Amino acid sequence: MADATEDRMQKIVSLCKRRGFVFQSSEIYGGLRSAYDYGPMGVELKRNLMNEWWRSMVHSREDIVGIDASIIMHPEVWKSSGHLANFSDPLVDCKVCGERFRADKAPRAESGTPATITLADKGRAKAALEKVQGLAEGIERDGKTLTGAVAPERGYVCPNCGSPFLSEERQFNLMFRTSLGPVDPVAAIIDRVKASVEAGDDDKTLRAKVEDAMADSSVYLRPETAQAMFVNFLNVQQSTGMKVPFGIAQMGKSFRNEVKVEHFIFRSCEFEQMEMEYFVEPGQGPKMLEHWKDARLDWWKSLGIKEENLRLRPHEGDELAHYSDGCYDVEYKFPWGWDELEGIASRTNYDLNAHSTGSKKKLQYFDPQKTDPDTGKNGWRYMPHVIEPAAGATRGLLALLCDAYDEEPGDADGKGARTVLRLHPRLAPIKVAVLPLVKKDGMPELAREIVQQFFAAGINAKLDEQHAIGKRYARHDEIGTPYAITVDNDTLTDRTVTVRMRDDRSQKRIPLSTAVEVITTALGQA
Amino acid sequence: MADATEDRMQKIVSLCKRRGFVFQSSEIYGGLRSAYDYGPMGVELKRNLMNEWWRSMVHSREDIVGIDASIIMHPEVWKSSGHLANFSDPLVDCKVCGERFRADKAPRAESGTPATITLADKGRAKAALEKVQGLAEGIERDGKTLTGAVAPERGYVCPNCGSPFLSEERQFNLMFRTSLGPVDPVAAIIDRVKASVEAGDDDKTLRAKVEDAMADSSVYLRPETAQAMFVNFLNVQQSTGMKVPFGIAQMGKSFRNEVKVEHFIFRSCEFEQMEMEYFVEPGQGPKMLEHWKDARLDWWKSLGIKEENLRLRPHEGDELAHYSDGCYDVEYKFPWGWDELEGIASRTNYDLNAHSTGSKKKLQYFDPQKTDPDTGKNGWRYMPHVIEPAAGATRGLLALLCDAYDEEPGDADGKGARTVLRLHPRLAPIKVAVLPLVKKDGMPELAREIVQQFFAAGINAKLDEQHAIGKRYARHDEIGTPYAITVDNDTLTDRTVTVRMRDDRSQKRIPLSTAVEVITTALGQA
Repeated sequence: MADATEDRMQKIVSLCKRRGFVFQSSEIYGGLRSAYDYGPMGVELKRNLMNEWWRSMVHSREDIVGIDASIIMHPEVWKSSGHLANFSDPLVDCKVCGERFRADKAPRAESGTPATITLADKGRAKAALEKVQGLAEGIERDGKTLTGAVAPERGYVCPNCGSPFLSEERQFNLMFRTSLGPVDPVAAIIDRVKASVEAGDDDKTLRAKVEDAMADSSVYLRPETAQAMFVNFLNVQQSTGMKVPFGIAQMGKSFRNEVKVEHFIFRSCEFEQMEMEYFVEPGQGPKMLEHWKDARLDWWKSLGIKEENLRLRPHEGDELAHYSDGCYDVEYKFPWGWDELEGIASRTNYDLNAHSTGSKKKLQYFDPQKTDPDTGKNGWRYMPHVIEPAAGATRGLLALLCDAYDEEPGDADGKGARTVLRLHPRLAPIKVAVLPLVKKDGMPELAREIVQQFFAAGINAKLDEQHAIGKRYARHDEIGTPYAITVDNDTLTDRTVTVRMRDDRSQKRIPLSTAVEVITTALGQA
Repeated sequence: MADATEDRMQKIVSLCKRRGFVFQSSEIYGGLRSAYDYGPMGVELKRNLMNEWWRSMVHSREDIVGIDASIIMHPEVWKSSGHLANFSDPLVDCKVCGERFRADKAPRAESGTPATITLADKGRAKAALEKVQGLAEGIERDGKTLTGAVAPERGYVCPNCGSPFLSEERQFNLMFRTSLGPVDPVAAIIDRVKASVEAGDDDKTLRAKVEDAMADSSVYLRPETAQAMFVNFLNVQQSTGMKVPFGIAQMGKSFRNEVKVEHFIFRSCEFEQMEMEYFVEPGQGPKMLEHWKDARLDWWKSLGIKEENLRLRPHEGDELAHYSDGCYDVEYKFPWGWDELEGIASRTNYDLNAHSTGSKKKLQYFDPQKTDPDTGKNGWRYMPHVIEPAAGATRGLLALLCDAYDEEPGDADGKGARTVLRLHPRLAPIKVAVLPLVKKDGMPELAREIVQQFFAAGINAKLDEQHAIGKRYARHDEIGTPYAITVDNDTLTDRTVTVRMRDDRSQKRIPLSTAVEVITTALGQA
């Protein structure tokens, strides 16, 4: 089962590279940890997905407007939001194998129970034995295993080798830090350290002074797009005159220096989000949460993702943030199991309140038609509450790929076997392939004319004249092109072409003059 | 003249904030140096501009495909491209006023000529006099001016106060540096400095050791999108089977830690680019450059920008990079003068060659149908040459705003005066405003229905029922909405509505049932 899962993921990753969906970033330089580039097919699929979100959130609704904020925001934003103090993972180093890991994700082990250390081979085990002999007594080696150690009080061991010999936990902030302005932060740190060494400062004082010296120029890459909506609440409301309830939507890149990256593009350091903050009257949060959780699940279904692979999971009480009064995850059944695509959270007025306190600006809304519940007077000035549907675009893309990936075994001899990406036609990178049967007799020229007609109609078409026709169908099946139009000998005499459907490989003959109309209609009905 | 220019820019900046095009980033926290957020109107205008580029570059052409690469790339990319060594400005500090400035942009002053230092006021001049008395003799103060200093050998003075007392030049790299992975770069620097202090290293050795300690985790935010196309050349060519000549296009954010930011969003640290690398046979560069320079100018014109505000400027010999054999700038006549919108450069095979050397991968293309000019044999393997049209999306947005901004004085009494944004209808954030004359008698409900019809047709419409109808027209003139449909008393009886044109304020009466069709046609013909 685990093998089948791994196998399926590997096939998807392989197709992604082979067909130009996703490449490892800077691959010719050996790649960069968990960074990915979207190739010619990937960029189209991602754009189609994100444009669908924008259309459904912003361009089909009176009550939601969009923004696009900068990735580098004022550091005070992250102070107020709590990210500077709390957006961190507890990191630990294993003193035996050197693994650096998250304490909160490490394997549990009851204090005082035996802890077996297992290395990759005998040689490593021998080296490990030498190391631990300085740390504890009574450890013995048997092959690549060390026994005699006991689990530490903190209740976990190294996820790599099982060792209980661990460094202190330290908090590792997941925000990427950089410096803004014509300063040289490294020189500033050097100067500060030299002065501290001279003054005989202890390590803690020294570090505090260094952080202080850096504070003037330190800025962070946003770890989420959401804060920009809170910080821009007044500007947006005042420039548009929007009335509560209303929402502000944003799509874009966010950055998290994840300790553990995993599952291809699922958890990576640079990713794209599609987030919306919906501002409501105090007291309306829970009702709106119910509305949005259903609306968001329906949206994912509308992309053609199979219903049985989508579910809503309410957060348990202890999973909820302290300020939240309700949260659901939309989960997709990835090859490795159910995992999060989107979170829909009722956040009360926590965020506006935090930024109001931090900035000393009144982030409030005035409704002249309501009665203030406290004073009973006409007109109510309040800090809106917020429902946040926060979706991962990068994860969404992976879910689309996983859901669409299909293998057909063909007949008993494997004849007719194929891999096909059953993407919703609206999302497919290329809508129609135009294929001249052979590269002569004017067929390529005619195909080229047809492609231009599709371009003019705003339909992304692709002329493809390489290799035999079967191979070309197979290639377009693999990138999910829903329709193919073939120009052949008959076309030259009777002006008809073959339309071939990706999903069932059925074909029909239509007049060339109706090609754009037929495909436009098919796309509209898909 | 300078005042009128400043006045016009100020009016545009003010409209941008008032109407939700551009806000200062993190404004409630006092804003962040040269960072901007795009509000509800700005995000639509920017999306429309960038979608136009994508449509014209990728979706209307057989020979260009898109990619979307990560912002954080492998550091070796920037080593090979030369950005790590050379993408820097010479920075100098003024010892009198503290100004930090670019040596290459400072006012020239012939060595040995008198250099007058002018401070903001007498108090500052007094303090400055004390400072310079330690640096030179014979300096005298008269009011807020110091005389008696002479221009230094390096041939320039402080741009702020005119002082010749300057720090050494140092090279300031414009790339933002950060750290990737679960490391603590500050701790690494501290450890390194402490060890160096103990070892008695000199400053240069110390700095080199610190840089070395950081090298493992240092990564950079891309200062341009272009390098990703070179680095992905093989992956894209192989996954798509594209044949030379072909292009790879990308749009997205880039980051430069500019010493001098200026002209609102024109030069800022975070900005968006639209770049395309067009790969051609060796020898075809100069011809293709001529093609692309015209094509790109035409594209900017097609956005409705006035012809007299656009020009092509060929680079002079000494302006050209050493590897380039030709370059043009598309310039726009901004309120402050002609400035760059896009550069179209013939870059030979400089970039592929640099990455080929750096990565030790053969970045070549094989054309089986050509004859190798060196060997005379069939089949030619070569490193393609490149033409690069590199446009600024953020600058393009500003050009659109500047070009569209118009004030009509109205009659002798100023009656009928208005500000109007004459954006091309294809680019306008909202295509049609739907305005119920009053908020009763079912007009808002009917208007709402009309808006839904526009949404269904994929046309971004906006219901607007606040304030008197004239004020609403004025508001939509300011955001460039090309058409307005008014629902009034007659609509309720005869089912007709008024269509009002932004540009000449003309109005006509049409059947309500034809509203979507009329606007669709108007947009198609615009």
